[in-house]
Amino acid sequence: MHLQAPHLFDDATRVTAGDSRWQGRTSPDYWAFVGPFGGATAATILRALIEHPERSGDPLSLTVNYCAPIAEGAFDLDVRLVKANRSSQHWCVELSQGRGEVATLATAVFAERRPSWSHQEAQFPQAKPFEQILPYPKTAASWANQYDFRFVEGYPDIGGAKQDAPASAFSKLWIADRVPRTIDALSLMAMSDAFFGRVFHARGEVVPFGTVSLTTYFHTDADDLAAEDITRVLALADAKVFHKSYGDQSGELWSPSGRLLATTTQISYFKA
Amino acid sequence: MHLQAPHLFDDATRVTAGDSRWQGRTSPDYWAFVGPFGGATAATILRALIEHPERSGDPLSLTVNYCAPIAEGAFDLDVRLVKANRSSQHWCVELSQGRGEVATLATAVFAERRPSWSHQEAQFPQAKPFEQILPYPKTAASWANQYDFRFVEGYPDIGGAKQDAPASAFSKLWIADRVPRTIDALSLMAMSDAFFGRVFHARGEVVPFGTVSLTTYFHTDADDLAAEDITRVLALADAKVFHKSYGDQSGELWSPSGRLLATTTQISYFKA
Repeated sequence: MHLQAPHLFDDATRVTAGDSRWQGRTSPDYWAFVGPFGGATAATILRALIEHPERSGDPLSLTVNYCAPIAEGAFDLDVRLVKANRSSQHWCVELSQGRGEVATLATAVFAERRPSWSHQEAQFPQAKPFEQILPYPKTAASWANQYDFRFVEGYPDIGGAKQDAPASAFSKLWIADRVPRTIDALSLMAMSDAFFGRVFHARGEVVPFGTVSLTTYFHTDADDLAAEDITRVLALADAKVFHKSYGDQSGELWSPSGRLLATTTQISYFKA
Repeated sequence: MHLQAPHLFDDATRVTAGDSRWQGRTSPDYWAFVGPFGGATAATILRALIEHPERSGDPLSLTVNYCAPIAEGAFDLDVRLVKANRSSQHWCVELSQGRGEVATLATAVFAERRPSWSHQEAQFPQAKPFEQILPYPKTAASWANQYDFRFVEGYPDIGGAKQDAPASAFSKLWIADRVPRTIDALSLMAMSDAFFGRVFHARGEVVPFGTVSLTTYFHTDADDLAAEDITRVLALADAKVFHKSYGDQSGELWSPSGRLLATTTQISYFKA
């Protein structure tokens, strides 16, 4: 019995199965000024792979290259299983609209995660509890309003007084769907791209910005995530360098219980 | 006048131009037990792109997914310019042998790096000078012998007494080509994969291991690298988690002058 309407994230990342050509469409709920929220695009691509009848195993890595703006409306996903091994699969996905040029190019690895020696070297970051922090206010970008951001450190100080020296690009924050939704690989993928541009933090202002390439590694499989059964993550993001119009970002997504669920890196364009 | 033979790295990563199908071949100089050194494969793919007549700009990011072992000998590179923009290009490369299945799948972004605000947030790591450290001894893997590794921290303590607790996966080391060669994007790409498996460090033993997906971001263009004019980098590598047969690695490649040249992440299979 299905009494609840689907979560708007699931609506936004819905795909229609094809043979090798799948369909999706942009969502006004996850819009980012000049195109869809890149995290929603990445999650939609991941959903097509997870729902693919030939898929086996869990997502291990996904790299998404944003080649060109995506217009509002429908898009096609050309989904190709490039190589299947005994316990891993390599996929390639091309997103296009109206039989036009490729707008997004992605590669993914799926794997059956076999039991092994297990060791988490990274330390769980200390953080004030979610309940004790006020949510970040609503923004002009619809996608950001679908998330409940609660900053522990590195609250965006944007549009204040002009800074003399660059500020830290580091942020620590809780991220939840505004309408609670259980964390799965799809939401981890989208949340990987849900950090504000590091350049905004470093410069204390919003500048033209766009993710060029995003890679996320999954350190938990579906069973691990089901055992966590959570609706939010503790997230870290930082940057190392901004130079000649491009800057990097690295991030970590943690379960409240102290488990590192996913790590992510991206390189982004900026104009400043 | 060309009096010197080409550097063996340039021999190992040589490509023969085709239209969309280029050729390369594995090199015994860069062999890693069951296949070519992944860094040499990645550099060969990058070389095909850099030498491609349609290429414009400098490498910004390269992701290489290692799908299947590569046998000794010749291979084909299907090189495709997926999308060209005003100042960036998106490429896809498939490596195969004998018209067989794809063995390596890569995507790359090239960009014309325009002047911008510049800020390096990451701190240059303190390190004992290269000249004051003994080179790491020769190994059974030919590829490792092409490099001059000088460990500042995290010297691999492999095959000693069994450890009670996992050791740190962190390493800081100088990396140079054993036969000196000026650092360019190709060598940065190869050096991105020249760290020993983090799981070897954490467990203090060599275990079955293979890189599954490798992503490198370039934070300098050809002009920046030419200005550095260096033959070695100071490199950092670390891991955050090993779980269910896969572990991560992140790394940084610095110029001796204190400039962050490239950052890299990978996810790897291990058996332990």
